[in-house]
Amino acid sequence: MSVKFASRVQQMESSEIRELLKLTENPEVISFAGGVPAPELFPINELIQVTKEVLEESGEQALQYGTTEGFNPLREKIAKRMNKKFKTNFGIENILITNGSQQGLDFTGKIFLDQGDVVLCESPTYLAAINAFKAYEPRFVEVQSDDEGMRIDELESLLKTTQNVKFIYIVPDFQNPSGTSWSPERRKQFMQVVKEYDVVVVEDSPYSEIRFEGATPPSMKSMDEKGQVICLGTFSKTFCPGLRIGWVAAETNILEKYILVKQSADLHTSTLNQRNISRYMDSYDFDANIDKIKEVYKKRRDIMLEAIEEEFPKEVRFTRPMGGLFLWVELPEHMDARDVFTKCIKNKVAFVPGESFFPNNRKKNTLRLNYSNMPEDRIVEGIKRIALVLRDLL
Amino acid sequence: MSVKFASRVQQMESSEIRELLKLTENPEVISFAGGVPAPELFPINELIQVTKEVLEESGEQALQYGTTEGFNPLREKIAKRMNKKFKTNFGIENILITNGSQQGLDFTGKIFLDQGDVVLCESPTYLAAINAFKAYEPRFVEVQSDDEGMRIDELESLLKTTQNVKFIYIVPDFQNPSGTSWSPERRKQFMQVVKEYDVVVVEDSPYSEIRFEGATPPSMKSMDEKGQVICLGTFSKTFCPGLRIGWVAAETNILEKYILVKQSADLHTSTLNQRNISRYMDSYDFDANIDKIKEVYKKRRDIMLEAIEEEFPKEVRFTRPMGGLFLWVELPEHMDARDVFTKCIKNKVAFVPGESFFPNNRKKNTLRLNYSNMPEDRIVEGIKRIALVLRDLL
Repeated sequence: MSVKFASRVQQMESSEIRELLKLTENPEVISFAGGVPAPELFPINELIQVTKEVLEESGEQALQYGTTEGFNPLREKIAKRMNKKFKTNFGIENILITNGSQQGLDFTGKIFLDQGDVVLCESPTYLAAINAFKAYEPRFVEVQSDDEGMRIDELESLLKTTQNVKFIYIVPDFQNPSGTSWSPERRKQFMQVVKEYDVVVVEDSPYSEIRFEGATPPSMKSMDEKGQVICLGTFSKTFCPGLRIGWVAAETNILEKYILVKQSADLHTSTLNQRNISRYMDSYDFDANIDKIKEVYKKRRDIMLEAIEEEFPKEVRFTRPMGGLFLWVELPEHMDARDVFTKCIKNKVAFVPGESFFPNNRKKNTLRLNYSNMPEDRIVEGIKRIALVLRDLL
Repeated sequence: MSVKFASRVQQMESSEIRELLKLTENPEVISFAGGVPAPELFPINELIQVTKEVLEESGEQALQYGTTEGFNPLREKIAKRMNKKFKTNFGIENILITNGSQQGLDFTGKIFLDQGDVVLCESPTYLAAINAFKAYEPRFVEVQSDDEGMRIDELESLLKTTQNVKFIYIVPDFQNPSGTSWSPERRKQFMQVVKEYDVVVVEDSPYSEIRFEGATPPSMKSMDEKGQVICLGTFSKTFCPGLRIGWVAAETNILEKYILVKQSADLHTSTLNQRNISRYMDSYDFDANIDKIKEVYKKRRDIMLEAIEEEFPKEVRFTRPMGGLFLWVELPEHMDARDVFTKCIKNKVAFVPGESFFPNNRKKNTLRLNYSNMPEDRIVEGIKRIALVLRDLL
C-alpha cells in the first residue's frame, strides 16, 4: 500500500548517533560515542529499598493513573532545589514532570513552532534538540559561539533582522557537544539583550550540577526580569536515565501550555518512577550521590585530557570542560571526522563525528568525545587508538 | 511578556474530563467519571518482588538508557500474545513500546496529519484521541455508528467523496465511551471496504482483553490484506496504568516512522518499567490476573445495569457492554447532561457528560458511566442518586 505520511516526517531523520551506536555495540569497542552515564554509580540497592517502601505504603496510588502535572511532592522538591542551586523563584505550580528532558524539547517545538518559524541556537548545538524541533518544520539560525558562550554582537544583529524568531535554544552549562560553559559576563550580556525582545529563551541544563571546579555562574532564569526563560531539567545525569524523569520549569502562563500538550501526548509520566525518585530524595543524600558522580567523571576527564595532550598531533584542538560529560575536538580544516571514524571503528574505538551538531553549516572537521562511560584504562587505550589514526591521516 | 505560541496550541483545550475530575476528587463523591481501573487488583506484592529481581540481576541495564524501540523480550512477548489472542502475524520488528497507548495516539497524529487532513472516526469516539489528533490541526468527519459498529454505507460514501482522509480511527472492542463492540459481520464488511482505499486504519484496543461474555470477534488486523491496519495496545487496563507502558504494532514501513518520532519525542520508554512487566509475565500468570479483573468488573457491570433498570426513568436508554469499563446513556433529546451533572455533583455523584466525545456534532443528551472503579454498594447508591436527579428533571 502507498502510505501518505505528513510532510513533517520527511524532515526527520534517524539520529546519526543512534546509527553509529549500533556499530559500537560490540563490547570490544572502546566507545566515546554515547552520552551515557556510568552505570556502576547507579544507586541500585537504594532503589530496591525505595520501591519496596513506596509500593507497600501507597501501591494503589503508585500504580494508578496520576495527574498530568506530576507527583506534587516531587514537583515541590524540584522547585526548591532549583531555587537553592540556581537562584530561581519557582513554586510547585511552575513545574511539569516529563519523560526525560527530551520530552521537554519536543513539547517546546510543539508549543512554539509553526512551519517556517525560526529557532536561534548555538553552533554547534545539541543534536537531539535539533531533531525534536525539526518535527515542527522550523528554520534554524545558528549564532556563532566562542569559549565564553554565544557571541552577543551576532545574537543582537540576528534578533534585529530575523522575522518570527520563536525561541533561542541554549545549553549554557557544559554544553553537549562542545563541553564549554558560558562565562558569567556573557550570561549577563545575553539576558540584557534578550529582554528587549518578546522572545522565549529555552535554558536546557542537563549537566549544570556535574561541575568539577569553579564557581557556579548565574543561571539565565535567575536574571529573567520578564518571565521569558523556560528551564529544562532532568534526573538522567544526576541519578539515572532509565526512569525517564525530567521536568519543565516556567512561568504559569507558559507552563499551562506544556501541561495541555503533555495531557494529549501521554497523559502523565510514570507514577511509580516519580514516587521512587521523590522517596529516594527523602531517604538518601541526593547531593552525596552527585558528589560521587562528579568525582568519577572528573578523574575520567583528567585522564582523557592528559592522554589527548600526550598522544594527539598538535594541529588538533580540543576543549577543556569544567564539568559535564563531553569534550569537543577540532581537526585541521581539510579533515573529515567521518573518515577518521571509519578508520577508528576498525581499530575498535568510537566517537561521534561532529557535523550533525550543526543544523545548517556542518563543520566536518569536528568530533565529540564522551568520557563518563569508560573506565580509566580504556580511556587511555582508546585515545591512543584515535591518535594513531590521526597521525596516520595527517 | 506577550508570548507567541504556535497556532496548534489554540486548537487544543484542556480535557473536559480532567476539569470534571477535579470536582470529583472529594472522596465523598461517588464517581463514575474516570476511566480508572480498580486499584485493589493491582499486583503490588508481585511488583515488589519483580523489581527486586530485575534490579539485582540487571540493575545497570535497567536504569540506563535503552533502545528507542523498547526492551526486546517485552516486544517479543507482546507480538506473540497478539498473534495468539488476535490472530495477527507480528514479529518483534513490528512492535514499538510507548508511554501508554495515549502516546501511540499522539504519534499517529504526528506521523499522518498535515493541517486540514481528515480523520474519520466513530460518533461518539474516544475523547483523548480527539485531543491528541487536534494538536495536528486535522478536520474530523464522524461516521455514524449503531449497535454493531460503524455504519458501512456511510463509511463507503464518505471515503468516496472526502479528500485527504489520512486514517480511520476506531475502537472496535467495548468502545470508550459507548461500551459497544463491533459485530463480526460488521468488521468483515469494514475491511472489505477499506482495502479498496489507500487509507490507514488505527485499531485502538485498550479493552479487548476485558471481555465478560461471548466469543472474541476477529480483530481488524487479522483481516488486513494490504498492511493498512495499525494496532494500539496498552497494559493500563490488563495490568496497571501507573507504569505507562503501551505499544504500537504495525508493518515495518509504517513502524519505522513511529520509531523515528519516538526517538525525538522522548528517546525511549522507562527501561525499568518495561523490564518489570516483562519479568512479571515470565514469573506470574498474566492471564489469571486478567481473569480476576474481568470477574470484578463483570460483577460491577451487572450491578450497575440492574440498578439502572430499577431506578432510571424508562425514557432513558443505555448500552449493555459485554466487556470494558464503560456504558453509555442517552437521555431524552431535550435534556442536557451538563444540567444533570451540575445537580448530581451537589448530590455527590459524578459522571462525564457525553458531548465532548463528539468532535463536531455534540449530542448534549448523552453521558458516560464508568463501573470499574467503585465498589458494589457505592455503585447502587450512586445510580440511585443520579436517578433521583433524572426523575426530578423529567
